[in-house]
Order: sequence, then C-alpha cells, then structure tokens
Amino acid sequence: MGVKLLDAWVSPFGQRVRIALAEKGVEYEYVEENLAEKSRLLLESNPVHKKIPVLIHDGNPVCESLIIVEYIDDVWDKKPHLLPAHPYLRAQPRFWADFVDKKIYECGTRLWKLKGEEQAEAKKEMIEILKLLAAELGDKTYFGGDAFGFVDVALVPFTSWFYSYERCAGFSVEAECPEIVAWAKRCMERESVKKTLYDPEKVYEFVCFLKKRYGVE
Amino acid sequence: MGVKLLDAWVSPFGQRVRIALAEKGVEYEYVEENLAEKSRLLLESNPVHKKIPVLIHDGNPVCESLIIVEYIDDVWDKKPHLLPAHPYLRAQPRFWADFVDKKIYECGTRLWKLKGEEQAEAKKEMIEILKLLAAELGDKTYFGGDAFGFVDVALVPFTSWFYSYERCAGFSVEAECPEIVAWAKRCMERESVKKTLYDPEKVYEFVCFLKKRYGVE
Repeated sequence: MGVKLLDAWVSPFGQRVRIALAEKGVEYEYVEENLAEKSRLLLESNPVHKKIPVLIHDGNPVCESLIIVEYIDDVWDKKPHLLPAHPYLRAQPRFWADFVDKKIYECGTRLWKLKGEEQAEAKKEMIEILKLLAAELGDKTYFGGDAFGFVDVALVPFTSWFYSYERCAGFSVEAECPEIVAWAKRCMERESVKKTLYDPEKVYEFVCFLKKRYGVE
Repeated sequence: MGVKLLDAWVSPFGQRVRIALAEKGVEYEYVEENLAEKSRLLLESNPVHKKIPVLIHDGNPVCESLIIVEYIDDVWDKKPHLLPAHPYLRAQPRFWADFVDKKIYECGTRLWKLKGEEQAEAKKEMIEILKLLAAELGDKTYFGGDAFGFVDVALVPFTSWFYSYERCAGFSVEAECPEIVAWAKRCMERESVKKTLYDPEKVYEFVCFLKKRYGVE
C-alpha cells in the first residue's frame, strides 16, 4: 500500500517530514491539501487535530510532525539515523526539537501578525530563542554533530521563514545569530533540504497573503 | 552517581516521572524544589526552561516530563515497557501523550483561573478533550491495552486535579465521562500511582492558594 503524505507546500511541519523521507530515500506519493477545504482523507486520518502533515503508511496514519519523523527513523532503520541509539543522546535532540516546536512557530506568528510593542517583544524573544539554539549548536557542523539529525530536521524548515520574520519585524538574523545562518547554508547543501525548502521570497508572498487574510496592515 | 529527581509535589508533570520510576523499580533521591526560590542545581540543570521535573542520571540532566519518561523506558529497558517496540504502536501513544500535553493542563488552568463565559468555554473544551480520550480508551483496561503504558503515565496525574476542575467550573467528570473515572480508579490500584498521587482535597487547597495568588475571586 506504500507511503502517502498529506501536506501543504509552505508548512514547516510538513517540510520536516519531506526532509526525513528524502534523507532515508523513501519513495512516496505527495498529496497537496487545500487547507480551505480539507479532504475527507485528511479529516479521517487526523480526526483529532484535522491538520497536515499526515503520513499514511500501509494504510496507517501517523500525525504530528516530530512523531512522524521519529516514526520514519524507526521504520526505515538504516543510515542516516536521525536519532542516536544511546538513551541520553536521544533525549537531548528530543529536548531541542521540542523547544523548536514550543517556541519558533508561535513566536514567528507574532512577528508577522502583531505590531508596535507586542511585535517588538516577539522580536526580542525570537532573538533569544535563536541565540539559545546557536549556543546549543556551538561549533558543530549540525545540531546532530557531524551527522545531520533530528534537531536539524525540526529547525531547518523555519529558516526559509526568516526572511519574512525579518521584513515584518525589522531585524537581521544574520546580524544577531550568524552561526544559525551559516548552519542553514550548510543544511541547504543537502539534497533533502534543497529540494524541500522554498525560496524565502515565495514564503514572504504567502505571509503577505496571511496578513491580508487576518487584516494585518 | 545514581538518580536524582528535582520535582514539586503537586506537579502532574513531576508525578509522571515518579510513576515511571516506580513502575521500573528505580531507586532515586527525591528533591522537593521551592519554586518561589529555585535551587542553583535546578537552574543549572534546566537553564532553558528553568522548570521541574528534571531527572539527573549519573550527573546528566534530562528535562521535559514526556522526554524523561521515554528516557526512563529506554534506560531501564525491562518490563514493564511503557512504549511497545513496533514503530506504529509507539507512534500512537506518543500522539495521545502529546495530545494530553497540549490540551489538558492549559485548559485545566483556564477552568480555575477564569470566570463566566470564558470559563464555560473552557469547561466545554475540557469535556470534549475527555470524551476524545474516552473514545481512544474504548473498552481497554488501560490506554496501553492490557498493559499500563505511556499514555496512562501521561494522563493519570491530572485525575487528581479533576475534583478541583469540577469545583471551580461546576461539572462532573463522572457524569460526562464515566469511562475515564473508571479507568482512573483502575490506575489507582497500582502501587506506582497510589503512592504518587495526592488526595484531590489537598490538590484543591493548592488550587485555592493559586487562585488567591492570581487574584481570582
């Protein structure tokens, strides 16, 4: 029955799954969902959250992007391993991926949705978040060390949103956290990332569409 | 160097860790943190979130309750296993534990913190959350089937908060979701749960203290 991915092109969560599948060399059917009119398959596959991405493997749906990425790492149990085998070395990337999940999207949304003081606060927060991530990265090639791993997969899709965050809130990720921009460039050299992420200008167009939709001037 | 747990008695997140350690029969040193004046050890062990629980194992800190519970299941790799071995059967409890994480605490906080229409909305939401969980439980003994597992560990600490939710918002979990109350009773027969959870009256006293502190009438 194979592998099917219900997704939406600009979703950083969906992109995580696409990158993980590409890293493992898994063939799959990509289904672009119209989020304004979700398919019956999506609603039946993720009745609780009704959200993309959903990976359907041999008829079994798996939901929530980080859970899907772990699932992919568990099922296609061959190199590259996204999570190491040692319990402590698994717990650390899970912590940082969870940190990305809890912080970046929500804070990023405030960057384009809010104005004035509230936006300034979100900007300060985003810079703190990125600085914490830069400290965790240190002088490693990837968050996973020499190997591209779980945290890299979790974070890298957001880098194509940086340009939008910067334009909306008036700051420069490169000036604040050059290490993160350098890391993003290294990730973009990987086929799995390069073919998945979209041009930041195209993401910005989408953000402008969102701003209009939510009545943000 | 052994196992040390930085925790706070009433925390459902800390209780998850205590239940998992008890299920595995792990001996550990329990350290009750004063959250008004966090210890240097806590701040150094969890510099990102500065929150309990933190499990320190042989000097290595692990943070975030579900990540700690998976870590415990990975390290003390003996029965009872909290997560099954099969990738799909691991993904499902991860999904539901994540659902508990995203929904219950936040909605529960609104139940005691808010009033009027906002509280009524939170009540409606909590009942929906519990009904979704009851549907997932079905006629199984535990969320883990015949075996007490990951979702059971994730959810059961909140059952000692139900009484507070009910008193604050005026509803009955038993009337709305008798299956969940019956499941909680089955869990309470386990030594690991019984010795970890507190009397709902004592939790309610704590909630009253919180209400005062936040100026909720």
